[in-house]
Amino acid sequence: TTENIWKPDTAVPEHIRKLLVPSGPNHSVNYILAFVQIVRLLKTQKRTGWVDRGIPAEKVESISDHMYRMSIISMFIPNENIDISKCVKIALVHDIAESLVGDITPFGGVTKAEKHRRELESIQYLSEIIKPYNERFSKEILELWLDYEEIRTIEARYVKDIDKYEMIQQAWDYEQDFGLTYDLSEFYDSRTAIVSKEIGELCDEVIRQRNEHIEALKSKASS
Amino acid sequence: TTENIWKPDTAVPEHIRKLLVPSGPNHSVNYILAFVQIVRLLKTQKRTGWVDRGIPAEKVESISDHMYRMSIISMFIPNENIDISKCVKIALVHDIAESLVGDITPFGGVTKAEKHRRELESIQYLSEIIKPYNERFSKEILELWLDYEEIRTIEARYVKDIDKYEMIQQAWDYEQDFGLTYDLSEFYDSRTAIVSKEIGELCDEVIRQRNEHIEALKSKASS
Repeated sequence: TTENIWKPDTAVPEHIRKLLVPSGPNHSVNYILAFVQIVRLLKTQKRTGWVDRGIPAEKVESISDHMYRMSIISMFIPNENIDISKCVKIALVHDIAESLVGDITPFGGVTKAEKHRRELESIQYLSEIIKPYNERFSKEILELWLDYEEIRTIEARYVKDIDKYEMIQQAWDYEQDFGLTYDLSEFYDSRTAIVSKEIGELCDEVIRQRNEHIEALKSKASS
Repeated sequence: TTENIWKPDTAVPEHIRKLLVPSGPNHSVNYILAFVQIVRLLKTQKRTGWVDRGIPAEKVESISDHMYRMSIISMFIPNENIDISKCVKIALVHDIAESLVGDITPFGGVTKAEKHRRELESIQYLSEIIKPYNERFSKEILELWLDYEEIRTIEARYVKDIDKYEMIQQAWDYEQDFGLTYDLSEFYDSRTAIVSKEIGELCDEVIRQRNEHIEALKSKASS
């Protein structure tokens, strides 16, 4: 039924929603303060993939932790023909709709099409909230998100690759912290989705070191 | 004694340091992988100011959470005469030395001069690690950090203000979550250090709403 359709505004916590009064005093400032407080939800939400594999919640990175490191990785892409600032901005915005939608995995019971609908509606919603304060950024945030979602630019292509590499690196970071306690093997399969030579090269070295580590453990166990 | 002088390389965890072999195979890739793993320490380190006030560790934001939201705030500064991409990059880099130094507060027993020395040596160290892989970014990260530290540009000035605003907003975010359980009042005093009209205006509205909230609680208690 239509009553059950997920809508972005129902995901906004009450203390934030009360700032969104269209004709209120300080209208534009209150709208942007609401946006900043919605962005904060990226700090408090954990990346579902790690939680689902049993990594202790207090050790699991936030969604903003992930986008932060992606933005730093974007800054050292060794290709002089791309717009690095654009890559950085796409990295910072690409998962921002998860502030309202949450981090939906393929195992969460939500279809890929429904996930896309929720995220698109959320980024449109955020864009509308920003509009009274800054029309330029209102448009930009939507365009950056669409660039990524539809892989419209070479910059978006690199950020897609960095999204996978950052995740693979994080899997290896956890395995170095905790040993091979949790089953993180499948995360490394995302290597096959990486297109660019430069980002692929970083992943390959991580995977090589991991395999070397596993072999060393095996020969230790059998000796 | 000289033996006691803090050095960045001693703060690098062993499993990362072993990647830093100057003449090793895959030298430049291993160095940048070490850098990415050092950046990860920003995800696992909590912002000391909140921990010191007693906010439960699992609820305290990471250093990268803080820089992430600062970078988003940078994107909507309503001043068309500044370089927004530069602001975003400064926001992302300004606390990156804390990956090795940690988040030193005025109450940590380390002087301001010693804090600066450690951070400067750390950013120089990170710049050197990046160099074999990407000389352009090796220079840029140092320049962005110095821009901020020495407030060399108008962009750095805005990011200094955003650093204070983001912290004040976070104090209010915590107080909305937990009530006035923790003594966070002094964080709001940083308002006086904010120079720009635009960022000051956002803080003033946060502080006005907080005061209104406190007044409402008082009149409720006395009625």
